[in-house]
Amino acid sequence: MLGVNSLASTTGPVLVVGTGLLGASIGLGLGSHDVPVQLRDASPSALALARDVGAGEISGDDGPSPEIVVIAAPPDVVADLIAEALRTYPGAVVTDVASVKGVILAELQQMPDLDLSRYVGSHPMAGRERSGAAAATAELFAGRPWVIAEHPGSDSAAIRAVRHLATDLGASPVHLDPEQHDEAVALVSHVPQLMASLVAARLTEAPEQALALSGQGLRDVTRIAASEPRLWSAIITGNAAAVRATLDQVRADLDRLIEALVKVDADGPLAVGATAAVAAAIGAGNEGAGRIPGKHGGARRRYAEVTVLVPDEPGELGRLFSEIGQIGVNIEDFQMEHSPKQKVGMAIVSVNPAAATTLEEALTARDWRVVAR
Amino acid sequence: MLGVNSLASTTGPVLVVGTGLLGASIGLGLGSHDVPVQLRDASPSALALARDVGAGEISGDDGPSPEIVVIAAPPDVVADLIAEALRTYPGAVVTDVASVKGVILAELQQMPDLDLSRYVGSHPMAGRERSGAAAATAELFAGRPWVIAEHPGSDSAAIRAVRHLATDLGASPVHLDPEQHDEAVALVSHVPQLMASLVAARLTEAPEQALALSGQGLRDVTRIAASEPRLWSAIITGNAAAVRATLDQVRADLDRLIEALVKVDADGPLAVGATAAVAAAIGAGNEGAGRIPGKHGGARRRYAEVTVLVPDEPGELGRLFSEIGQIGVNIEDFQMEHSPKQKVGMAIVSVNPAAATTLEEALTARDWRVVAR
Repeated sequence: MLGVNSLASTTGPVLVVGTGLLGASIGLGLGSHDVPVQLRDASPSALALARDVGAGEISGDDGPSPEIVVIAAPPDVVADLIAEALRTYPGAVVTDVASVKGVILAELQQMPDLDLSRYVGSHPMAGRERSGAAAATAELFAGRPWVIAEHPGSDSAAIRAVRHLATDLGASPVHLDPEQHDEAVALVSHVPQLMASLVAARLTEAPEQALALSGQGLRDVTRIAASEPRLWSAIITGNAAAVRATLDQVRADLDRLIEALVKVDADGPLAVGATAAVAAAIGAGNEGAGRIPGKHGGARRRYAEVTVLVPDEPGELGRLFSEIGQIGVNIEDFQMEHSPKQKVGMAIVSVNPAAATTLEEALTARDWRVVAR
Repeated sequence: MLGVNSLASTTGPVLVVGTGLLGASIGLGLGSHDVPVQLRDASPSALALARDVGAGEISGDDGPSPEIVVIAAPPDVVADLIAEALRTYPGAVVTDVASVKGVILAELQQMPDLDLSRYVGSHPMAGRERSGAAAATAELFAGRPWVIAEHPGSDSAAIRAVRHLATDLGASPVHLDPEQHDEAVALVSHVPQLMASLVAARLTEAPEQALALSGQGLRDVTRIAASEPRLWSAIITGNAAAVRATLDQVRADLDRLIEALVKVDADGPLAVGATAAVAAAIGAGNEGAGRIPGKHGGARRRYAEVTVLVPDEPGELGRLFSEIGQIGVNIEDFQMEHSPKQKVGMAIVSVNPAAATTLEEALTARDWRVVAR
């Protein structure tokens, strides 16, 4: 019990209620720090599977009282399980990992006997395409955001305990209140899920010859449309207000697009305002997509790319680098594109946007061929 | 000129009008078979760039008469360029590579002096995130579908010539009439593009803290939202009727979703029919997504996955394979999942769906632990 355990702030025991992907992954992750984990699940076979993959021990009736209870059950049963845990373990901090936070807190606040100071909702932003304990992994949360959605009555020791749980599992805690959380996930998760489903649903009747033209764009847009309907309908109805607010805005944008296309149908492709309306929709998409942080977290740095033709001769690329250095511009990233049969390569130099024009002009003055951005 | 050229059915010269990504890639691909390629572009700098990357020679006024003219210009100028080519080169087959086919044909049919028997529209289903000749590659079309959208008046020699062009570039020809083509690309390309833009557009005003929760799902759904507004608005207004028909259906589905969420807002999460409506939308998405062919073309085979727990002991996996053989079920695909700290591995065995239950029962009878599907 000594040794590795000293790295974890959570001492345990931790009781995990619900042994699907998230619950079993939490068990595996804590187990890797030698934190004792007890498991409970309404399904005996799911429970046995979680134990067999090493997520923890099956919780007995006379087990030790837990330090933390983690409710990792489907969203529609979470509030009742939180209430039960608060009543059964008067010394425990209780959290849940459901994808919605507002409705759960509202349900709990209607139960007057509960000591909600020990409840802190949370939501690890992690998942996999496979579900169940069979897909669980101790590394599921590594480097992922873990929302800690404390409510005004949460006490600070309870907040700290849930924060420790998240950091022990390698996640990055993000504090949001339940309402902020629900609006955020509507935007970045629930509405994208529904839109992917709407696109994919149009393919149910599509002729095979149309499907044969599918490319990577369609595959990307619809990848998450393969998600599980029962789980996702519970998540989305559990966040109805925020999802609906965003869908209303989507519908307004969609109406404008359809209106533009109706005009084109009536007046031809040069119908007044039609192309501009479509271009505006795509332009807004450009802007929004540009705000999504990069894969490894943190805001996406916005570099400008300067593309330079480099003759396929020895020393030319070295000369380019050394001249960019003389010009005094810092290279933030660099990529070389060279297709077979092309007589020149394309050096794509990423620089601070403020420096891009300077660099282009200076390189052109030195007889480099700069491709217009 | 001998040797490699003998592999290509196209003899050339080929005149490519428009030297962006597609035009320059066609030039590079034909050039790799030593087919002579002439280039023309309204922009002298784009033209020079295409020549410099090796896509062909700049076409002079007194050049040889082309065998095929390929119009690879933005969709809104394509019809005029086709007409000009048909008039200028009375011996040439003329094709274009625009993403819309119906409006272009309709425009041409309004020009009474044209010999449209030599015109066969086409559409290679290939692209890259970068545009312009700088991103061109001879392999752009390799293994990709290339729609050949002949019209009733196209003569068979012209159809054959365009088919040869596609196969010389490594693409797989798919014959569709212009209307079928336009409906197909509305479903698999244009509407997904617009929906990705609508999702991304919602992020323009999102707080940073919401964006910080972005995951791979959002990145996938919105990847193509980074597309170029000017080009895409021309494509979409050029296919207004088909895009609008599909968007109308999307709007009907969206209205049903919003209606369900309004009910939940009014009557709580158990509002009659609300969860079922959301689940139906996601279920339809599951079904549609399941129809998209796999990355390497061809209909996606629908295998059933049987997941078996395999103890982490020497020889156990071999025993599993040998027993599946004894049971008489063919293994179509196989995947092993094994997370650190798990005491067992998961063998995911893909089999013909008709054999899945048999296999599960037989393995269970032999004391293997089968995970419920």
